[in-house]
Amino acid sequence: MSCGKPSIALSLGDCAGIGPELVLHALNSTDIRATAELVVYGSKVVLQRVSAKSKITLPADLRVCHTLLDEDLGLPGPRLVNIELTEPHKIQPGVVQAVCGQASADWISASVADALAGRVNALVTAPINKEALHQAGVLFPGHTEMLAALCNAPHPCMAFFTPGLIIALATIHMALACVPAALNAALLLRIAKLLHQACLQQGIAKPRLGMLALNPHAGEHGLFGDEEQRILQPAIALIRDAGITISEPLVPDTAFTWLYPPRREPPYHAYIAMYHDQALIPFKMVAFDQGVNVTLGLPIIRTSPDHGTAFDLAWQGKASPTSFFEAIRLAASLCVMD
Amino acid sequence: MSCGKPSIALSLGDCAGIGPELVLHALNSTDIRATAELVVYGSKVVLQRVSAKSKITLPADLRVCHTLLDEDLGLPGPRLVNIELTEPHKIQPGVVQAVCGQASADWISASVADALAGRVNALVTAPINKEALHQAGVLFPGHTEMLAALCNAPHPCMAFFTPGLIIALATIHMALACVPAALNAALLLRIAKLLHQACLQQGIAKPRLGMLALNPHAGEHGLFGDEEQRILQPAIALIRDAGITISEPLVPDTAFTWLYPPRREPPYHAYIAMYHDQALIPFKMVAFDQGVNVTLGLPIIRTSPDHGTAFDLAWQGKASPTSFFEAIRLAASLCVMD
Repeated sequence: MSCGKPSIALSLGDCAGIGPELVLHALNSTDIRATAELVVYGSKVVLQRVSAKSKITLPADLRVCHTLLDEDLGLPGPRLVNIELTEPHKIQPGVVQAVCGQASADWISASVADALAGRVNALVTAPINKEALHQAGVLFPGHTEMLAALCNAPHPCMAFFTPGLIIALATIHMALACVPAALNAALLLRIAKLLHQACLQQGIAKPRLGMLALNPHAGEHGLFGDEEQRILQPAIALIRDAGITISEPLVPDTAFTWLYPPRREPPYHAYIAMYHDQALIPFKMVAFDQGVNVTLGLPIIRTSPDHGTAFDLAWQGKASPTSFFEAIRLAASLCVMD
Repeated sequence: MSCGKPSIALSLGDCAGIGPELVLHALNSTDIRATAELVVYGSKVVLQRVSAKSKITLPADLRVCHTLLDEDLGLPGPRLVNIELTEPHKIQPGVVQAVCGQASADWISASVADALAGRVNALVTAPINKEALHQAGVLFPGHTEMLAALCNAPHPCMAFFTPGLIIALATIHMALACVPAALNAALLLRIAKLLHQACLQQGIAKPRLGMLALNPHAGEHGLFGDEEQRILQPAIALIRDAGITISEPLVPDTAFTWLYPPRREPPYHAYIAMYHDQALIPFKMVAFDQGVNVTLGLPIIRTSPDHGTAFDLAWQGKASPTSFFEAIRLAASLCVMD
C-alpha cells in the first residue's frame, strides 16, 4: 500500500451514465484523496468530455497510463488506466450504446485483474447498464455475477452497508418462488462467516448477527411453513458451533422497526435476509441513494454505490456523489492496513 | 345510528391482556365518546377488577345489559353487553387461560351478530391470544379468519391503514413458498375493488392504486419469475376495465422509499401487496403500534389495533391506547352516515 493509504480502483461504469462525473467528483475531493490513492479504469476522452460538459474539473495531476506497472506503485497521486473506447467522441450521454457496455466490461476486467494481482487493494465500481452490456454480448445479470466469474469465486454474497445497519442476502436475483428451495444450512453458514468477518473488519469486536425468518410470524411454530425448523434452526446450530453469535429466526415484520425515527439502539450488528426484497425494502427506506453495496466472498474487496446509471441526469453535473464516496470510504475501511 | 354518531362495538379481547384497559381508556375519552356510541362486549367483573388495579375509572354512566335490544338503541351513552366468564375473579393478568380464550370468542360472536343485525354500525376488536383460543378449542389462526366464518364471507381481505398509507394484502397467513401459487387475477381484481371502495369511503375522490410486483426488480422482464406477466398484468387489465386506476407492477424495494423522512408526497393512495411481509415490513417501520388493521370484504365494518395482547403490560395501566383509538376513529370514518 503506497503512502500508508489503500490504493483503490474506480471503474468508470457505463460512461453514458453518471459514472464519469462521480469519478471526477472523487478525484477533486480532498477528503477522498486523503482516504485512498485512486486508480481510475476508464477513458481519458470521455472524462475530458464529461468534465467540459459538467464543469467538474479533471485534475491536472492525474497521471495517465495504459497498464498499471509494479514499478509505478510507489508514486503518490491519482492515476488513470486509460483503456479507450473506439470513437469516444461519438458517445452520447443517456443512451444505451453497445460500445459503452463493452467498455464497462473491459474496465471491470482490467481492474479485477489488478486487484487479484495485488496492484490495487480494493475496487469500487460505478454503475453499469445491463442492456448496454447485453448489446455488447456480455450476458451477466449484474456486477456481482461478473465479479464472481472473473475471480473464479462461485459463492459471492451481496451485502448492503449503511451506518448502523448491515444486511447480507442469502439469495439475490431469483424469482420469489425459487427462494425456499435455494436455502440450505451450508449456504447460511457460509454467509454468516462472511458477515461475521465483515463486522470484525468494521471494528465490531463481538458481532451479534440477526437471522431473519423466511415466513411471516417466523412460521408461527410451523403453521405457515417449516423452513424455520427444517433449514434455519440447523443452520443456526452450525453457525453457533463456529463460534458466531446469532439470533433465533426473527419475525421479519418487526425486525426493522427500531430503524424508524426516533431510531433506537440496533438489536443486532448485522442481519442475514432470506430474499432480495426482505433486505432491500427496509434498507432502501432508510438509506436510499446513500447505502453501499458490498460483495463478500470474493478474493478482492469490492463495493459500489446503491444506485443505478441515472441516464436522465448524465453529464450534467447534477448527480450526487454521496453514495459513491461512501462506497470508497467503506472499501478503504475494509482494506487490512499494513 | 343514534344521535347521528355511529354505534361501535368494542370486543374486550383476551381479558388477561391489555384489552380491558384499552376499553376503559376509550370509555373515559371525551374525544372517542364524541366520535361514537360505544357498546362494549365483555365482562363487568373483569372491567371492575382491571379498573381497580390499573386506576383507570370505570365510568358511572356505563349501562349494563345482557343483550342489545332494538328498543334500547335510541338511548345515548356507553353500554356494556355483559357476557360474564365463569369465575371471573380467578382470571390472572398475563397468563394464557382457556376460559379467557373462550370468552374472547364469545364476545366476538355476540358483537358480530349485533353488527350483522344492524344493531351496531361497526366492530373494533381488542387483541386476542391465539394460544388461549386454541386451549378453548377455538381453532382459527386469528380474528380475520374467525370473522370470515361468522359472517359467511369466504374472501376477507386484510388491510392496514395509517395516515397517508393504506396497504391491502393479497395473501395473509401462509408460507412464503405457497404465495406464488395462491395469486391469480380474480383475487387481485377482488382486492382492488375492495381497496378502491375503502379509499372512496376515506374521502379520496379519485383513488390511485399501486400494485406491488411479486419478484425482485418486478421480475426484470421475466428474468426472475414470470408472475408479473402471467398474473399481475392480466389482473391489471381487468382492474382497469373495472374503471379503477392502478399502476404497472411496482419494483418492491423502491415502492416505499417516499415514506422515510423527510416524507414525500405519496405516489399512490393505496397499495396491494402480494405477501404478508412485503406489506408489514414497511408498514410497521412507519406505523409501529399506531397502525390500524381493517378487514375488508366482510358485510360488517371491522378494525383493530395493529398490536397484540401485551401480556407483559396487562392490567398495569401502562399500555398506550393510541392504536386502539385510531381503530375506533377509522371504524367511525368507514361508517356510511345517515
